[in-house]
Amino acid sequence: MSEGQDIHAMMRGIGARARAAAAELAFASPAAKTAALEAAADAVWARRGEIVAANAKDLDYGREKGLSPAMMDRLMLDEGRIAGIVEGLRAVAGFPDPVGAVMAEWDRPSGLHIKRVRTPLGVIGVIYESRPNVTADAGALTLKAGNAVILRGGSESFHSSQAIHACLVDGLRSAGLPEDAIQLVPTRDRAAVSELLQMVEFVDVIVPRGGKGLVGLVQREARVPVFAHLEGIVHVYIDKAADPEKTRKVVMNAKTRRTGICGAAECLLVHRDALALGQQVIDDLIAAGVEVRAGSGLVGSVEAGEDDWGREYLDAVIAAKVVEDIDGAIEHIRRYSSHHTEAILTEDDAAAARFFERVDSAILMRNASTQFADGGEFGMGAEIGIATGKLHARGPVGAEQLTSFKYIVEGDGTVRP
Amino acid sequence: MSEGQDIHAMMRGIGARARAAAAELAFASPAAKTAALEAAADAVWARRGEIVAANAKDLDYGREKGLSPAMMDRLMLDEGRIAGIVEGLRAVAGFPDPVGAVMAEWDRPSGLHIKRVRTPLGVIGVIYESRPNVTADAGALTLKAGNAVILRGGSESFHSSQAIHACLVDGLRSAGLPEDAIQLVPTRDRAAVSELLQMVEFVDVIVPRGGKGLVGLVQREARVPVFAHLEGIVHVYIDKAADPEKTRKVVMNAKTRRTGICGAAECLLVHRDALALGQQVIDDLIAAGVEVRAGSGLVGSVEAGEDDWGREYLDAVIAAKVVEDIDGAIEHIRRYSSHHTEAILTEDDAAAARFFERVDSAILMRNASTQFADGGEFGMGAEIGIATGKLHARGPVGAEQLTSFKYIVEGDGTVRP
Repeated sequence: MSEGQDIHAMMRGIGARARAAAAELAFASPAAKTAALEAAADAVWARRGEIVAANAKDLDYGREKGLSPAMMDRLMLDEGRIAGIVEGLRAVAGFPDPVGAVMAEWDRPSGLHIKRVRTPLGVIGVIYESRPNVTADAGALTLKAGNAVILRGGSESFHSSQAIHACLVDGLRSAGLPEDAIQLVPTRDRAAVSELLQMVEFVDVIVPRGGKGLVGLVQREARVPVFAHLEGIVHVYIDKAADPEKTRKVVMNAKTRRTGICGAAECLLVHRDALALGQQVIDDLIAAGVEVRAGSGLVGSVEAGEDDWGREYLDAVIAAKVVEDIDGAIEHIRRYSSHHTEAILTEDDAAAARFFERVDSAILMRNASTQFADGGEFGMGAEIGIATGKLHARGPVGAEQLTSFKYIVEGDGTVRP
Repeated sequence: MSEGQDIHAMMRGIGARARAAAAELAFASPAAKTAALEAAADAVWARRGEIVAANAKDLDYGREKGLSPAMMDRLMLDEGRIAGIVEGLRAVAGFPDPVGAVMAEWDRPSGLHIKRVRTPLGVIGVIYESRPNVTADAGALTLKAGNAVILRGGSESFHSSQAIHACLVDGLRSAGLPEDAIQLVPTRDRAAVSELLQMVEFVDVIVPRGGKGLVGLVQREARVPVFAHLEGIVHVYIDKAADPEKTRKVVMNAKTRRTGICGAAECLLVHRDALALGQQVIDDLIAAGVEVRAGSGLVGSVEAGEDDWGREYLDAVIAAKVVEDIDGAIEHIRRYSSHHTEAILTEDDAAAARFFERVDSAILMRNASTQFADGGEFGMGAEIGIATGKLHARGPVGAEQLTSFKYIVEGDGTVRP
C-alpha cells in the first residue's frame, strides 16, 4: 500500500468516526458540553508544561524552516498565552447553548403546530495555519454547537496543536462525550488536506482559517461546502458630509490599531469635495508611520500604482484615492472589495443609507472603526473567523452560525385534505 | 468555433448579465417587484393562446419521444392550468418582501448599534424537469427575494417555458426592472447545464428540482453550491403508544392522498408491541389498492426484499417492517432516510421527544400526515422545493430561504481600544 493510500484510509477512518460522534453529540446535554470545555480548560492549565515543551519543538522546526519573526511570534506559546487559551475555553463553556433553541413557532389553519428548532450542522472540518491556539478555539466553538470537528493545523504548530488537542480529549472523556468529537489530523502530509476537502459523505462544511494561499487552495479543491473566508480588502470612504474629528479618529484607528488583522483598513476613498479633510487624514497617517500610496489629487508617501487597488497589505501601508462622489466610491468598492467590511464616514443619513443599500459586504459600518469587525466585538463571544460568502454564515462565525435547524410538526391525527 | 465553445460563451454571457442584474435588483423597491409580478400575471393570462400553442409543440415532441402518460400529463397546459400559473404569480406578488427586514438588532458596550438585515443571495440557477409552470414559480420566487435567476427547464417543456418566460420579461420591463433578472437558457443542449454548474463567479447557488437522476448529476458536477434536494424516502413509525384511530387515518393519508409527491410515505415501521395495529393499517392500505411489501412478522401483498428499504416508490407501494422498539425505528431511519420527512405516531410525549431529538431530517412530524411537507402548508406561501441538506436552507425553500444577510454597524466616531 502506498503512502497516498494510507492517508486516504486514515482520513476516511477519521471521517467515519467524526460522523458517528456527531450523531451522539446532536443530543448531548448542554451541561455535558459545558463540563467538557471546563475540564479541557483545567487540563490545558494543568498540562501547560507539556504544551510549552511541545511548542519548543515547533519553534525549533520553525527556526530551521526560517520562519519570519512575525510567524515565529504567532507560533510561540508561553504561560501567558496558555492562560489566554484557558480563558477562551472557559468563555465558550459559559456561552448559551445554541442547540435546541426554538427559532420560531406558529400554528396553521390545518391544526398543525410548527416549530423551527436549532440543530448542530454535523461534522465541520477546520483547516488553519500557524497559531496553535486555534486548536482550542475552533475545537471548543464547534463542540458548543454540537458538532464533531476534524482539525487540521499548520505544519509549524504540529506538536503544540497535538498537546492542546490531548487536553480537549481529556475534557470530552471526563464529561462522557465521544472522544472522536474533536479529532486532530495526526500528520503534516498535505495529502490529508486534499482528502478532507473531498469527503462529502463525512464532512458537512469546511472552514479555512488562514492566508490567501490556504483559502484559495480550499476554494479550488473542495467538494465539501466551504464557509468562504477571503482576505479583508477593507475600504473606508470619506464622504463630503464627513465630520472631520470623527473621521481623523476613526481612520487612524481603522488603519493603525493593529495592521495585521483582516478588519484593518487597506484603502481610503475620498470624496472630491472632502479633499482637504482627506489630505489631513493622510498627513496624520504618514506622521504615525504609515506609508500612504496616493492616487492623483492627494499627496501621499508614494504614488499609488494600478496594483494598489484591491490589495490587502496587512501592514502599515494604505492606498488612497479620490472619487467623484458616493457612487464612485460604491463602484470602486464593488470592483475591488473582498466583501468583508467597508465603512462610510458621513453625517448625511441619506448617504449612509445609499452606502448600506448598495454595497454588498458582510459588514458595513458608519462612523466606526473597521477594527470592530470581530465576533467578540459583535457580542457573539468567540468566532471561528469572518465569512465573506453569502450562504449560511456571513460575517463573524460564532457558535450560532455553526448550527442548522429542523422543523418539528405536531398534529393530532391531522391529515391533509 | 465549436458548438461547445459557443455554449460556453453563451452561458458566460448569461451569467455576467445575471450578476449585473442582481446588483441592481438588490435595492429594487418592494413595489417594483410586486408590480413586475402582477404585470407578468396579466401577461400570462393575455398571452394564454400563445402559451397553449407553444405547449402543443412540446406535446408533439413528447409524443415523438414516447413520454409516459404521466409525463405527458405533467407537461400539458390548458386554460385551467394557465389560470393556476396566474394565481401563483399573484400569490407571490402579495407575499411580504423579505429583503431589508431587520432580523435582529442590538447595542454594544462600545457604543455601536448593530443590525442584521436580510439581503438577496445574488444569482440563483434553477434546473428543473418537465413541468413548465416551474418557469413561473421559480422565476417569481427568486425575484421576490431580490435575486437574479437563470432558469434551465426540461427539454420537453422547451417551448412552453419560453412562452411563459416571455411574459415574465414583459412584467420586468413594465416595472422598470432589468430584463436580465429572469433569464431562461435558450438551448436544449445539456452542455449548458454543465456550464451553469461550473460558473462560480456568476452563480451563488443552484437549486435542482427534479428526479434522482437530475439531482445526482447536479451534486456530482456542481462547483457552485447546491441546495440539496434529494428524494423523499419518508418513514412513518407506529409506536407502541400509538392511537389506533389517528394512526389508521394518518398512514392512509400519508401514503394514498397523492403517491407521486416527495412527502408521500414510503416505509412503515411498526413497534413489535403494536403489531395488531400495524397489521390493521396494512390491511387498510391493501384494501385501498396499495401494494404492501412486508417484512417478517407482518402480512403484506408481497414479501419485502432487501432493496425495499430506503426506496422511493412514488407510487401506490409501501414497504413495512417490524422494529424492536423506538431505537430500532430510529436506527432504521438513520440508515435509510434521505433526511426529508419522517413521522412518529404516538401518544407518549417522551417517545415523541426522543424521536425529534435523535432523527435528523428536515421535517419531523407527530400524529400528522407527511403529505403536509410543503411550503404552502407550512405557511411560507410558495416553495421552490424541499431542501434535504443542512447548509443555509432546509425543508421547504420559500422566498425567505433565498436570502442572505449583512450587518449594518453604526457608531459616532467610535474606535476600538
